[in-house]
Formats: sequence, C-alpha cells, structure tokens
Amino acid sequence: MNESNDRIDTTLVGRLARQLRADAIRASTAAGSGHPTSSMSAADLTAVLLARHLSYDWERPDHPDNDHFILSKGHASPLLYAAFKAVGVITDTELMTGYRRFGSRLQGHPTPVLPWVDVASGSLGQGIAIGVGVALAGKFLDRSGFHVWTLCGDSEMAEGSVWEALDKAGYYGLSNFTVIVDVNRLGQRGPTEFGWDLETYAKRVEAFGARAISVDGHRLEAIDQALTAARNTTQPTVILARTVKGRGFSEVEDREGWHGKAFPPEMARRALAELGEVEGLTVAGPKPASRSGQSSAPGAGNPDGFSDRPRYAPGEKVATRAAYGAAVAALGAVNRRVVALDGEVSNSTGAAEFTEHHPERYFEMFIAEQQLVASSVGLHVRHYIPFASTFAAFLTRAHDFIRMAAVSQANICLIGSHAGVEIGADGPSQMALEDLAMMRSVHGATVLYPSDATSTVALVDLMADADGVRYLRTTRGAYPVLYEPATVFTIGGSHTLRSSSADDVTLIGAGVTVHQCLAAAESLHRDGIAARVIDVYSVKPIDRDTLLEAVRDTGARLVIAEDHHPEGGLGSAVLEAISGAETPRLKLMHLAVRAMPGSGTPAELLADAAIDAASIDKAARHLLQADDGRSDDGRSDDDETLTA
Amino acid sequence: MNESNDRIDTTLVGRLARQLRADAIRASTAAGSGHPTSSMSAADLTAVLLARHLSYDWERPDHPDNDHFILSKGHASPLLYAAFKAVGVITDTELMTGYRRFGSRLQGHPTPVLPWVDVASGSLGQGIAIGVGVALAGKFLDRSGFHVWTLCGDSEMAEGSVWEALDKAGYYGLSNFTVIVDVNRLGQRGPTEFGWDLETYAKRVEAFGARAISVDGHRLEAIDQALTAARNTTQPTVILARTVKGRGFSEVEDREGWHGKAFPPEMARRALAELGEVEGLTVAGPKPASRSGQSSAPGAGNPDGFSDRPRYAPGEKVATRAAYGAAVAALGAVNRRVVALDGEVSNSTGAAEFTEHHPERYFEMFIAEQQLVASSVGLHVRHYIPFASTFAAFLTRAHDFIRMAAVSQANICLIGSHAGVEIGADGPSQMALEDLAMMRSVHGATVLYPSDATSTVALVDLMADADGVRYLRTTRGAYPVLYEPATVFTIGGSHTLRSSSADDVTLIGAGVTVHQCLAAAESLHRDGIAARVIDVYSVKPIDRDTLLEAVRDTGARLVIAEDHHPEGGLGSAVLEAISGAETPRLKLMHLAVRAMPGSGTPAELLADAAIDAASIDKAARHLLQADDGRSDDGRSDDDETLTA
Repeated sequence: MNESNDRIDTTLVGRLARQLRADAIRASTAAGSGHPTSSMSAADLTAVLLARHLSYDWERPDHPDNDHFILSKGHASPLLYAAFKAVGVITDTELMTGYRRFGSRLQGHPTPVLPWVDVASGSLGQGIAIGVGVALAGKFLDRSGFHVWTLCGDSEMAEGSVWEALDKAGYYGLSNFTVIVDVNRLGQRGPTEFGWDLETYAKRVEAFGARAISVDGHRLEAIDQALTAARNTTQPTVILARTVKGRGFSEVEDREGWHGKAFPPEMARRALAELGEVEGLTVAGPKPASRSGQSSAPGAGNPDGFSDRPRYAPGEKVATRAAYGAAVAALGAVNRRVVALDGEVSNSTGAAEFTEHHPERYFEMFIAEQQLVASSVGLHVRHYIPFASTFAAFLTRAHDFIRMAAVSQANICLIGSHAGVEIGADGPSQMALEDLAMMRSVHGATVLYPSDATSTVALVDLMADADGVRYLRTTRGAYPVLYEPATVFTIGGSHTLRSSSADDVTLIGAGVTVHQCLAAAESLHRDGIAARVIDVYSVKPIDRDTLLEAVRDTGARLVIAEDHHPEGGLGSAVLEAISGAETPRLKLMHLAVRAMPGSGTPAELLADAAIDAASIDKAARHLLQADDGRSDDGRSDDDETLTA
Repeated sequence: MNESNDRIDTTLVGRLARQLRADAIRASTAAGSGHPTSSMSAADLTAVLLARHLSYDWERPDHPDNDHFILSKGHASPLLYAAFKAVGVITDTELMTGYRRFGSRLQGHPTPVLPWVDVASGSLGQGIAIGVGVALAGKFLDRSGFHVWTLCGDSEMAEGSVWEALDKAGYYGLSNFTVIVDVNRLGQRGPTEFGWDLETYAKRVEAFGARAISVDGHRLEAIDQALTAARNTTQPTVILARTVKGRGFSEVEDREGWHGKAFPPEMARRALAELGEVEGLTVAGPKPASRSGQSSAPGAGNPDGFSDRPRYAPGEKVATRAAYGAAVAALGAVNRRVVALDGEVSNSTGAAEFTEHHPERYFEMFIAEQQLVASSVGLHVRHYIPFASTFAAFLTRAHDFIRMAAVSQANICLIGSHAGVEIGADGPSQMALEDLAMMRSVHGATVLYPSDATSTVALVDLMADADGVRYLRTTRGAYPVLYEPATVFTIGGSHTLRSSSADDVTLIGAGVTVHQCLAAAESLHRDGIAARVIDVYSVKPIDRDTLLEAVRDTGARLVIAEDHHPEGGLGSAVLEAISGAETPRLKLMHLAVRAMPGSGTPAELLADAAIDAASIDKAARHLLQADDGRSDDGRSDDDETLTA
C-alpha cells in the first residue's frame, strides 16, 4: 500500500485503520491487559497520518530528516505497535507474543528501547511538551524540513504542562509542530471535563497561539485535509478530532467502564468479527528525501575541548553559579551541539553569559520549569546537549519530567542554582533543600556539587560527555577558589583537601560546606586535632574508596555536613556507600538542615542550621571526646547520629 | 481612614498607596535586599483592595467569614508587610528592623508564621492554585460569603499551574475567586513574554472559563470598579491590571535591571522625596459581619473515631489501595472535616469509594496533579482534612507544591497508589520508584507504607490527626491480610512479624516486600535459619529502637528489601537511623530496584529487581556464609552492600 497520491484512497486507508484496530485488540487480548478502546478511537487518525503524512524512512530511524511522531497518550501503545507492524518493522508474532511481556521491547507504555520511539510516554501531558523541544531543534538548529506530530488524549489537556507547551510553541512560531487531540470524551474513570466540546478546546488552543482545526476523527478525508493544512501553515497546529472511544466495536463504543481493559478472548472474537476481514496490509508512507553525506549528528564539536576555558586563581572569590555561566559559554564556543535554556532567571543562574555569546543556541522558557526540562529532552532527541538552568528549588516543579527523562534514556544537563540555606534573606521558598534527594533517586543520574569555580568549570566539561540525567548544584554566594586550574576532576571522584598520616577525624562536605569543613579543620588544628577534609563534589556516583580509606585512617570518625534536609542527600549517599563495609564501627555526626529555616544572612542561617564551621568543629570534638569515654553533653553513644 | 462609602475617596486611597510604596522602599532599603519595584507596581491595586474590598477582621485572623488574600507574587513581600502596617497589625519599627532579618517573622517571602498569611508563597504560580482550594471550601463546604483574592505577577502566568488553577476555577464556577494580575511588563531578567498585551491574557483567561476585566492598574476608580464587579458575578474573575514596575519613582519606572534590588540609601531618599509627604495612615477596611456562636472549624467530627471501620480477616487477599478507599470512606462518615480529591484515577486509587458515600465532599481534579495538591493546601487553610490521591509516580508532578506545603505548615494527606515494579505490565512510566525519597526529604513529613489492609485502615485513621504533610504509599496487587483488626499501629512504629530468641538475621521490608520477607523467612526456616521480619510501615519517622534491637539480636545481619530505587528510600531511612549507634559492625544487603524495569508480571519484575522472596533468602544466606568466612560468590566483604 502506497498512499503518495494527492487524493486519499479511503478504501485503502480504511482497511489500514481496520487492521490497526484489529491488531490493537488482538495484542491486548493476548497480553491480558492494555488499552484497546483508547487505541480504537485514534486508529483512523493514525492510519491517515501513517499512510499519507508521516515522512519517515523506517529502515533508517536515525535519518536526520525523518518526521517525529510522539504518542503522548502512551497507554495507546497497542495502536502504536500495530502501526509498527503495518509499516513492517515488527512482526505479527512479536506483537502477539511480546506485548507487555517480561523482557520484551513492546512495553505497556512505549519507551526508546524501540528505535522508532523518541521518548517514553505514559505520564500524560509530556509528549506534547517534548514535541515542542524537538520542533525547536528542527526549526532553529537543524533547519530541517521535518515535522513533529504528537498524538494526545483529551484527558491530558487538563495538565498545566500542555499549556506551557502550547505557549512556547506559539511563542517560537513552531509551524513544524502539530498536535492531534483524540477527543474521545471518556477518561479513565468517566467523562472528561469537556466531553466533545471542541469549541472550548479550540478557544484555548487559539488563545495560546496555535491554529485549531476541528474534525470528525473518523472521517478519513477530513483528517487528511486537516493534516495537510497542518503541514502548510505558519503557526503550530492543534487538530481537535472528535472521536468515539472503542470505535469499531459496538459493544464498547462510547461506553464507560472500558478504559484500560483488554477484551476477554470471546469478546475479542466478537470485536474482530464486527470489524470484518483484515488482510495483512503493509504501509509505505512518504519518505524524506535522502541526504547524502550528511550526518544526523549536528555540529560534531571540537575534540580538543575547551580552548578558552575560564581560569580562576586560588583564593579569588567566585560564585559557582557565575563559574557555571562562564564554563557553559566557553563550552558552547567549542561544541556547537551545546545548547542552553533557562526559566527566566538566567541573570541569576549564570546562563546569561551563554546567551550573550551564543544567542542562536539559547532558548528562553520563561517561568515554566516543566517545559524547561521537556524542551531539553526534545533537544536531546535531535542529539543536542542541552544545559537547562533555574533555581534548584524550582527544578522540583519538573520532577516528573526528570523521572521520565531517565525512562527515555535522555542525555540532559540540569543546573540548579541557589542551593540551600546559604541563599540567605530570600527565605525557605527559594532554598533547595530537597534537590539532592530528588536527583539522586533518578535512575542513572549523575549528581555533581562543586565547591569552587575551578571544579565547576571542570564538571561542566564532564557533564557534556556523560550519559543520562546530569545535575549540577550551584551556590549563590562567592567563595574562595580552592583548586589550581589544572586540577583533574572525574565523575565519581572526590578531592581530599587536607590530610595527614595522623588524622583524628574526617570532615565530609560538598559545595558550600567544604569551605566550612576547611575552616573547622583549621580551628581543630589549632588545638592539636588533625582533621581530614574531603570534597565530595561527585555525590552520585560517589567515591567509595576514598571514603572507606578515610574511615579506616581516622578511627571511623566522620562528620558529614550538608546544606540540605537530612534525608536522601549527601549523608545518605555516604552511608549507602560505606555501610556494611569491612570497617570499624562508624562514629558519625550528620549535620544537615533539620528545622524550617527563615530569612537571615548566609552566615546566620548556616550557623542556625548547625552546618557552619563552628558546628562542624564542635561535632568533631564531640566524636573525639565520646571516644575517650567522655561526653561533653551527657549523651549516650546511641545519639551520635543526631545533629550537634 | 475608613473607606466604606459607595464612592471611592481617591485622595485618601491615593495617600494610602503612596504610603505603601514609601514603606516598601524604606523596608527593603533598610534590609539591603528585597523587591521594591515589584511592590510599587501593585501598590494602587493593593490600596484599593485593602481600603474598600478586602473584608477582614484584623483582630481576628481566624474569623470564619474573613476574606482571604493570597500574595502569589511573594517577592512583593514589602508591599504586603507595608499593608499589614497600614491596617495596624505590625508596627513601623517591626517593618524597619525585622524585614528579611534573622529570627524575624517578616521573611523575604511571606509564610504563615504571620497570622494573616494563609500560605507561603515565593514559588510562582502557586498562590493562585491554592486560592482555588480556599474558594472551593468557601463555596461548597463553608458556604460562607467570603471572597478569595489572589495577587499574581504577570511572569507567573507562564506556569502551567496557573492554567490548571483557572481551569478548575471555571469548572467549579468559583464566583468567590478573583485573581488580580499585576501586568508590569518586566520579569526578573527582562521583558515578559507578552509585555502589556492584555488582550492575549484576556483571551486565555476567558477561554479557561473566567471573566477578564482589563484596567489601568494605577487608576483608582477603575480598580475600584473592577473589584466591585469581581465580587458581583457568577464566574471567577481575573483582573488584568496594566501597571508600571517601580511606579512612583521616575528613576526606575519601567526600567530593566531593577528587579529584586533594594535602592541604596541615597536613592531611597530621592524616591521618598519624589513620592511626597506620607503621613502615618491607618486603614479600616470593610469587616465581615460577626457570627456569634459559630466556630471557625467546620464539622468537629466524632471523637470516638471509626464506628464502622472496615475489618479484614487475616489471610484474606486485599489490595492496600482498596483498603485505603474503604478506610477514607469510613473516616469521612465520622469526621465531616475529611474531604477527598483525586486526579481522575479514583477508580484505581480507591478514592471512588469516598465519592460514592460523600459526593458533596469529593473534588475531582482531573489530570492535574499540581492543582490536586494546591487544592488540598487551600482546603487545609479552611481547616478541612484533605486526602488527595493519584498514582504515586504522578505525585512527582506536584513536588514543588508538596515542598511549599511544608513551608506553609499545611496539614494535608497525600496517597500514592501503584508503587514500584509491583504494578507489572504497565511499565516504568507508571511505577513510583522515587516517591519515598521525595516524600522523606519534605520537612516534617510523615511517610507511611502499609503492607496489608488492616494496617492501611489504621494508618489512614492516624493520618487524619497527624500534622504536616503525610504520605501513604499503596500497592496495586492484592496480598494477604497480616494483622488482626485490633492490632495497634503508631506513627513511628513498626511490627516485628516473626522473631525468636535465636534469630540469625533480620529481614526488613515495607509494603509489598514485607510479604516477600515473610516467604523468605519461611524458606530459611526450612533450612534451620531463623530470620526476624520487621514491617517498617512507618518509614518516617522510623522505629529506631526496634531496628537497633534487631541489629544487636541478630549479629548485625540485615537484609533490607524495597520496591524503590536504592537512593533515599527505605534503605536510606534505616541507615540514617542506625548508623553510628553502639552496635556491632553492620552486615548489610540492601535490595532495591537498581536497573530500569520494563513490563512483566509482578512476580517476574520483583524477581528481576531481586527484591522477591528468593532474592531475600539468598541475601540472608550470603550474609551468614560471609560471616562464617565462607562466601558463596567469592565477593569480598566490602561488597556486601551491593545487591544480591
């Protein structure tokens, strides 16, 4: 079947739609679970798209001019996989025996373990947002003619992220971006907010800067015309398709109670009988013109790395957020794949320096953190290296997108500035005190937290080449540079800033608390106590060997200080790494932000949280006194993990 | 000053506005930081609201018929505090010496340490969302005539949460809800997306079901008319006020580069000179009619607790998500303050049972998790006990709202269903594997994870009376009831399900892994190995004493199994609790979900993640063999913390 003519062959495309429905039913019934009715409502839309509009070389999923199709309503995976069968890239056997099975690539919701799937979906409202990122890359960076098609459900239009996405699609004039909304009126537990009120959807969509086209989602000619119009416009397009959930099988059509339920075998037989005979059609839709000698990876970059890497002299006072800006701007100069985004705070995060030097590779997301991360994932789909920054506290706004980025195997760099109570007067709403816990729990994530400008520059360089979700936590205030410019940093490494063969105790910090640990080591030294100081700039992965060595060398006395709530952060990372290892019993003081902070100066707030130099000094002395059988406060040893 | 006449006295209100500007400048200059220009743009709006429309008894902030005023643009705190001075509840001395100072209640962004502040703001796009929750309470539960006023910035209109909020305001016809948008054209780093294009905002707002009124935000009569109209309508209202950032001081009016900067003293003097003389005005705006004998706390509830509490027989197979539904429905029958909300998945989370019995106290949020949590915080403001449920994975969507709920000292109950790989075929997008880390890191949060129906019912009861953010994690599949109905559970407790005086090893689980631990204990027992099994149903706070006792009793051999990523969850909670205590060296196997899961049956996925009974059994044997100097896999002891 080849549908390249100007006029749609409705008989042929109708047969394809019937086959998609039949295969969605067969696959889900074979699996015993899945969403056949949600697939059936969108089968006609998908058939027309596949046969006539999606320009895609199925033999070359990495073709740089392929269109992109993102199934935002990921639960309609049976439809997607039926489409993959129809284009010939998976077999009927795989569909029937693999769907939702252990070890299979045909998962319950699509993920990029399949080469034709750009990103994982299944958390609603995300596919449309990521599509915006892919379209940004297409229009502004690749300058390719590819089109981005996103198929959404109507339920997910309630997610705020959908409106962040359409707002940015409108702002950036993404005429290469089309959203198809399968308005089947029924959500999981009953009717959606607006049922078949396409007019309300259209008003919203138009108010957000997109062109709205309303169609009957089961009339093939109408769909075809809408998709043609969507490709030939100067605006993003949203096609609002009125559809019937379960369309094609009268027993379930437009009925409640059939969301996410596979039909039992006997029922599936009735459904297939009603659909009528389905022959094994294979579709050959449009293909992109072949480009010879062009790589799909844009701007290969400079293998020599930084040429004009920022250099800082030890002792100089520089904020790590400022160093981030200088570093990413320098990186952008030698690697054209590096792109920066920010959530309207680039003058605070440092990203403004990138904007200044590479305005053509900077995307302003305004105050929309979900879209900030979603755009980054979309840019990753097109092989760019996105660096997305905002206040670390506000990255929590995008937690679900970050979680899903890991499922999507996306390579993105996130930068969270203004970490911890160190920010001072602005108060707790602006203080990231949960971000390390959030980022550490993300599968495969790298979590970096530099203490000075030199290490920041080195870590930004390393981030660009790492895999997965990479997070850099930066600090508001300026602190002395600790490292010589040539110092080597590694992901999973640490630096021991102070040590001797007679160390009594180890002080472990990261970021701002490294400076507090160094000051504490100095005051301890004045009283003849030798303290080792470790800068755990790589929180995940963490340098277990260095930590274990310190445990063994310093009588297992550890003071950990972090500008973060006590749960899930640096302390947890250290404990998870060393607990159970062959060491003496740990004597531990874990200093963290245990109360709700208010406003104040950074020094006042570090002291109030007991993560400043004086508190670290006191904690170290407490461990040493407890060890001598003397306790300065009468506490039992059992209480040693409490804060000082 | 009393502005209760029908016609606004523009001279008087103009003087008030001048005073608000002057005090915002004085306070921020005295503090050396803050946002005077963002305060000045909204001073006229605030003056008219305060003098003529905000019906509030300042002596009785808990008056049940007080209007609610939420400053969504929390950075304009100098304006809010200047208003508090103008109504006479704080002194000029407190304003001038307290603002942004350590230990003061006049924090950089407002928090409820002040009795006239409902909720903390400062993470943009949240005040408007929480206002919707307060208005829901007013219209449907309190049935009071109070009005909810939210003052927003224009930058925050880019947040998706704003559109989730307006959508729900429209859906629920919240005519008692007014948003005032201070459209001052300038964000933090430069112009906003739409500048002074009020028409675009109006189109959006109207498409989302609100009435839009555009005004010049510095014309007092026009503001007064708009606010009057807003109170007398059948729809939510959004007043789009065109304002000038820094209004009143020509040096900064409408200029970039002055966001979030206090004026230096000399400049402040020039500003105050330009504003002209300001006398110490005190405002007495409208007050609510006094209600005698009426309590501000609605429906005091039944002190006897559950009368028809669900009861389950040990051995019966029940999903904890189903038990949640039964429990919250029963609780709702005896406590009229209990309210439920859900994100369009109530048939999956169990909340549908509440809806069935108490439809008048159920609020459908559709697929909008940010609004789900924001509405809960708003209901808390009116002293209700909200139980908000969705898939645990999708609570990550609301992470920033949950974080801020803690800053707001909000008492809310969150329920996350479908935790972990246990969900099976739907795949990783639907699996919560990060939620324990997220919830544990929230300040003051309670994190509960029941293993059976009986404990679920007991914990739901406890949640209703606890403080702060309380989280209940539930499981998709049905598992045998473990506890007799009369069993006592406590926040911070645990139950030892199996123990003897000769236990060789302790198996620690929560939720679904408790059942796996019990099965492992049984298979170990068949080989003469005695295993203690602890059900850590309270993950935060955690039962440290029982854990330490087990460490001492079982040769410090611990196997921890959790259906969660290894970072920040149950394993971290146990380690944080016991590390450093006076115990023998830990011998630990921490079993968690370390790889990215796919689809499969629950049994296949639990086995694949090595958190099933067989893996727990194997881990226990490994610890015992290693202890005997024999290792079954040649690993060194250093590797004991790795997964089996």
